[in-house]
Amino acid sequence: MTTTAYFAAGARLWPDYKPHLERAIAETGLDLDLITTAPDPEKVDFIIFAPGGDITDFSLYPNARAVLNLWAGVERIVTNPTLTQPLCRMVDPALTQGMVEWVTGHVLRYHLGIDQFILNQDGIWREGVAAPPARLRPVAMLGLGELGRACGQALAGLGFPVLGWGRSPREVPGIDCHSGEEGLETVLRQAQIVVTLLPLTRDTENLLDARRLGWLPDGAMIVNPGRGPLVDDDALLAALDTGKVGHATLDVFRQEPLPAAHPYWAHPRVTVTPHIAAATPPDTASVVVIENIARSLAGKPLLHLVDRERGY
Amino acid sequence: MTTTAYFAAGARLWPDYKPHLERAIAETGLDLDLITTAPDPEKVDFIIFAPGGDITDFSLYPNARAVLNLWAGVERIVTNPTLTQPLCRMVDPALTQGMVEWVTGHVLRYHLGIDQFILNQDGIWREGVAAPPARLRPVAMLGLGELGRACGQALAGLGFPVLGWGRSPREVPGIDCHSGEEGLETVLRQAQIVVTLLPLTRDTENLLDARRLGWLPDGAMIVNPGRGPLVDDDALLAALDTGKVGHATLDVFRQEPLPAAHPYWAHPRVTVTPHIAAATPPDTASVVVIENIARSLAGKPLLHLVDRERGY
Repeated sequence: MTTTAYFAAGARLWPDYKPHLERAIAETGLDLDLITTAPDPEKVDFIIFAPGGDITDFSLYPNARAVLNLWAGVERIVTNPTLTQPLCRMVDPALTQGMVEWVTGHVLRYHLGIDQFILNQDGIWREGVAAPPARLRPVAMLGLGELGRACGQALAGLGFPVLGWGRSPREVPGIDCHSGEEGLETVLRQAQIVVTLLPLTRDTENLLDARRLGWLPDGAMIVNPGRGPLVDDDALLAALDTGKVGHATLDVFRQEPLPAAHPYWAHPRVTVTPHIAAATPPDTASVVVIENIARSLAGKPLLHLVDRERGY
Repeated sequence: MTTTAYFAAGARLWPDYKPHLERAIAETGLDLDLITTAPDPEKVDFIIFAPGGDITDFSLYPNARAVLNLWAGVERIVTNPTLTQPLCRMVDPALTQGMVEWVTGHVLRYHLGIDQFILNQDGIWREGVAAPPARLRPVAMLGLGELGRACGQALAGLGFPVLGWGRSPREVPGIDCHSGEEGLETVLRQAQIVVTLLPLTRDTENLLDARRLGWLPDGAMIVNPGRGPLVDDDALLAALDTGKVGHATLDVFRQEPLPAAHPYWAHPRVTVTPHIAAATPPDTASVVVIENIARSLAGKPLLHLVDRERGY
């Protein structure tokens, strides 16, 4: 019997995903019917989804065996009360690799003070602007999931002392791991550069608030490729105004696109990037999704299942 | 009998080096007299030197057993006809590490297109500006000595395909190595980012001339932390004007400081940095120098001896 997978991630993404999903289906040899509208919701076996996609009421799909999210973040789906089906987040080595490149690039940019050279090509040869060695530049990695671990280990490989922080105690080779509120203070008090790669949950919203930003050494820099609400925007703007936070590179925001009038755009100590740190690559993500469907059909447990209670 | 080492690297460097050299001497237990003027040149056993230092005529020091250079590059000493003593260049893991940080930072900066975000914080949310994965961004590493190998391997570790080129055929794990003029063409025709880390010799002067720059894919980017004369400045400026070369980051120049009127400063496709890519750190370099003196006194061969014929 043919299995039906409903691509409900939105019409905008469909052209990017169609060829890759079709190729992944052909390569696994599944008898899978890929549809982009579902006139018969009861016949839908799997839902391929992205936030902002075509479904608001998941209860219309009682026979769906799983919702497969194309994004790593699930905070906008997991809070949908109609969702009772198993939800899988995207864990794709290519997405992780993209995040490693972006985070490493911006941490090195801050470490080396690259902006001053891009902005001040004024004919003045400034001696004494060489960076200290990376081993003297502690980096805090807030979040030790797939992405945080990979980024933290890449930075450690380049010589940075990496202080990791996560919700629960864990050990990651090359990273000095901490947890809990006390651990967060320990990490932030030492960090010259802070990277936020936490999932967005009730517990992590406004994690970087005025009090915790106050723990940072003066002039510390922040790189947020995680989720906008991890940072209390007003507190960050105040800390940037005083120079407590020396600079921030923000890729994610409460409202996206970030409105043109938002103070982040005009702040001399902020670089806004348009949610590009790590895009889900359709080619590799399609393979991940179809392999998970194949697992389910073969009676194997789904990979990357979201814990609804934890929220990620 | 006391051995005498003459610090002839210039008065400007002396305060930086004095405490570290004295500590390194104490730690090795050598009976070594460290002097900064040499009224009795015949009594000098070792010369610690840097280009621009206090000696122009090395023949005045007939009993010097070695000249220990504080810099990795020796092109300004090796051409001195009065130098008959063995010459050692600086090979210091800390200097190599600094170069890895700088090169990796600027290659990632180009790869991620970071400049556009630093320069254009104009309130416009630009979709579709995410970088391709590093695996689709070939990097050419010209020079496969200590520095080129270390930088190339760090970039390969981040996922970049690294094409290496050196004077003689060699194999470096993780790097696709080439040599000879034909190999140079093979490498440059594929390179989206070129890093020049060659020693400066008669053979490498103007290596990147108009003809070879013409081999690059349109819009390729150049990072030169090696030596200024590796690049034909007029040819590079012409290639930047047409966009053949998309951007260049230059840390080293024929004349340093780079004169304020030099066209590199004003060119919109050039970033000038003031010879900061990899400074010799006095603490670790002092250990390297004193250990080499200790080796010589113990009858062991000197490390990092320069081949006068090759020029490095």
